[in-house]
Amino acid sequence: MKPQALQGIRVLDLTQIYQGPYASFLMAMAGAEVIKIEPIGGERTRRGGGVDTPLAFAMLNSNKKSITLDLKSARGKELLLSLVEKADMLIENYAAGTMDRLGLGWDVLRARNPRLIYGSANGYGSYGPDWDQLAMDHTVQAMSGMMSITGEDGGPPARSGGQVCDFMGGIHFYGALMTALLGRERTGVGTMVESAMLEAIYFNISSEYSHYHRTGEIPPRRGDKSAGLTTPYGRYECRDGGWVALIIVSEAQWKSLARLIGRPELADDPAYDGNPNRNPKEPEINDMITAWTITQTRDEAYEKMKAARIPVAPVRDVEEVMNDRHLHARGMLNRMHHPYMGDVVLPSSPLRLFEYETSPLRFFPEIGADKHAVLGELLGLDDAAIDELSRSGVI
Amino acid sequence: MKPQALQGIRVLDLTQIYQGPYASFLMAMAGAEVIKIEPIGGERTRRGGGVDTPLAFAMLNSNKKSITLDLKSARGKELLLSLVEKADMLIENYAAGTMDRLGLGWDVLRARNPRLIYGSANGYGSYGPDWDQLAMDHTVQAMSGMMSITGEDGGPPARSGGQVCDFMGGIHFYGALMTALLGRERTGVGTMVESAMLEAIYFNISSEYSHYHRTGEIPPRRGDKSAGLTTPYGRYECRDGGWVALIIVSEAQWKSLARLIGRPELADDPAYDGNPNRNPKEPEINDMITAWTITQTRDEAYEKMKAARIPVAPVRDVEEVMNDRHLHARGMLNRMHHPYMGDVVLPSSPLRLFEYETSPLRFFPEIGADKHAVLGELLGLDDAAIDELSRSGVI
Repeated sequence: MKPQALQGIRVLDLTQIYQGPYASFLMAMAGAEVIKIEPIGGERTRRGGGVDTPLAFAMLNSNKKSITLDLKSARGKELLLSLVEKADMLIENYAAGTMDRLGLGWDVLRARNPRLIYGSANGYGSYGPDWDQLAMDHTVQAMSGMMSITGEDGGPPARSGGQVCDFMGGIHFYGALMTALLGRERTGVGTMVESAMLEAIYFNISSEYSHYHRTGEIPPRRGDKSAGLTTPYGRYECRDGGWVALIIVSEAQWKSLARLIGRPELADDPAYDGNPNRNPKEPEINDMITAWTITQTRDEAYEKMKAARIPVAPVRDVEEVMNDRHLHARGMLNRMHHPYMGDVVLPSSPLRLFEYETSPLRFFPEIGADKHAVLGELLGLDDAAIDELSRSGVI
Repeated sequence: MKPQALQGIRVLDLTQIYQGPYASFLMAMAGAEVIKIEPIGGERTRRGGGVDTPLAFAMLNSNKKSITLDLKSARGKELLLSLVEKADMLIENYAAGTMDRLGLGWDVLRARNPRLIYGSANGYGSYGPDWDQLAMDHTVQAMSGMMSITGEDGGPPARSGGQVCDFMGGIHFYGALMTALLGRERTGVGTMVESAMLEAIYFNISSEYSHYHRTGEIPPRRGDKSAGLTTPYGRYECRDGGWVALIIVSEAQWKSLARLIGRPELADDPAYDGNPNRNPKEPEINDMITAWTITQTRDEAYEKMKAARIPVAPVRDVEEVMNDRHLHARGMLNRMHHPYMGDVVLPSSPLRLFEYETSPLRFFPEIGADKHAVLGELLGLDDAAIDELSRSGVI
């Protein structure tokens, strides 16, 4: 029996939507006891609940416990602080400043538990000239420069598909919290930890900073490739309307590609040798590649290029990704049947520690499902006291 | 004097390009001793070196030491294994299988140091039906579904700007490694850790999985908004050719926006109340917003919307982001002058632990700059022995 890396770590989880819940999901899967503390009506990401529960909620809240707590009430605050005394960590991703306004800021929390790790995740952090801005994934995509370099040359700035700032924020939050736990394990010092989406996404456009530093020019917006000095590098349409994406990073790959697309004479032509020679011929080279891909289905083009050891992939849609044989074989994806959500594909943790156990997936909790276990076992409240708290609207 | 969370942790860093070096950069900033072990000519991301060094290389390699080592030579391998005995961690992001082929796989490493954390980062992981594929950020963007939902409705699939799979891979790698260190601190068990880009990016399109689960339909590709049931949500052009991005997540924000754009009558119109009413009117509502933004400069529109407490941001370009007053004030960004790179903006760590010290930024090392310090102090080699290794091409 292997150990779990976070066994015995107790996390009070006030987080919501994506950024925070991703961090606490990863902790739960590594063995932490994650107690999701929801507002009385449940976390907003549950939406209507029942069959209206979004799959993303199910994905992000596996293996957590749930209690509810009215943090605006004095009794709710006191219950939270009593739980803080029994916890290793408390995390939240409210708008910056919210916990202070609730009277539950870092000074209050640490007074109750000096070993606590308190984690706050948000858009811009808790200080600095622009801290007090409303931040969502969408606005941080704009603010961070991501949107300015996504989309087509000559077209409008575009979103990066999905919720990249939320999840970059969430996994940086996780990394910071693990670093803090490690520091505490080694020095005994508890700490507040802050994760700001705008900072978490900064490195994401590293090649574009390089481009700007090298040329003094704002990098172009191109949907087919990133800033850089590589040709060929792009997306290529196929006979069936599908696309393949490829990038050539060695001369051996270029030669291999030239032969595959029926232009073997270019493989040894010095005029096509190396990126400095190929970059000015990019349109011509892309046309050559498309002239071949358009005669193949997406999967044919992919398989043939893969066999030729070219870095290539099919542009897959969401349904294909959820049914990916590789991710299912690795246990990253799991087919499960939920009483009211029906057949679902739920991800496990992408963090793989071979000598440590990852928790088997357990469905997300119903609202408040663990109130007896949590409030009873941790705070010693009996059923009558818990029922009274429910009737009073505190939990 | 605050402690550093990773003080005394020694990392042998064989990583290259972005995915691995980001993880080791974060460790160096948290106080770990990171020894970058480069091939004889230097890591490829240095390019020509000197003034040709990309800014991204400088960003990712601050605060590391450098030695070179020929891992194909028997003496190079033995030097590495001697260093493994003195290290807490060894990380690499070669193509899967490379370390085994070098005779430096996990079994060999753990035999020399059972407490070692060995981290391997790559595209698809080391097992599963499709493990043996060449993976780059670009191809994983296609494989993961990211490309299928980035770009414009009716247009080709597009890249997410920047190197999102590399950096999602890198920060997940960091999170997994910290989890492993924590596990080792608590149980004494060393482990191999694996981070696959395809798994690290999976959650990134959570709203799109929800959409598919809810509707059974492949989510549309839209550059202006993510899958979901929110209106307004988009990007809006301004008088000066700039853009603002906004998303309305409460009815108070909707009312505030309606008043700001000169349509106060809509604020209390039940026909516009709530997303279910507004979603079918999306084109009309977007036109109304643009009718106002097009009369404002980007910065005027942004400031007025921000004052009205609407989640909004300007679409900023790379130059603006590098000069962001907020990120500079927070110490995330730093202006420095490098002997041959000139004026540069270098980021610190986005991981903020208030009771722990982040290292002050120190420029990236020259190739092999620390060979005497590392090989002398850790392995007890004298200058003559180190010079002989240089002459023999081992270091």
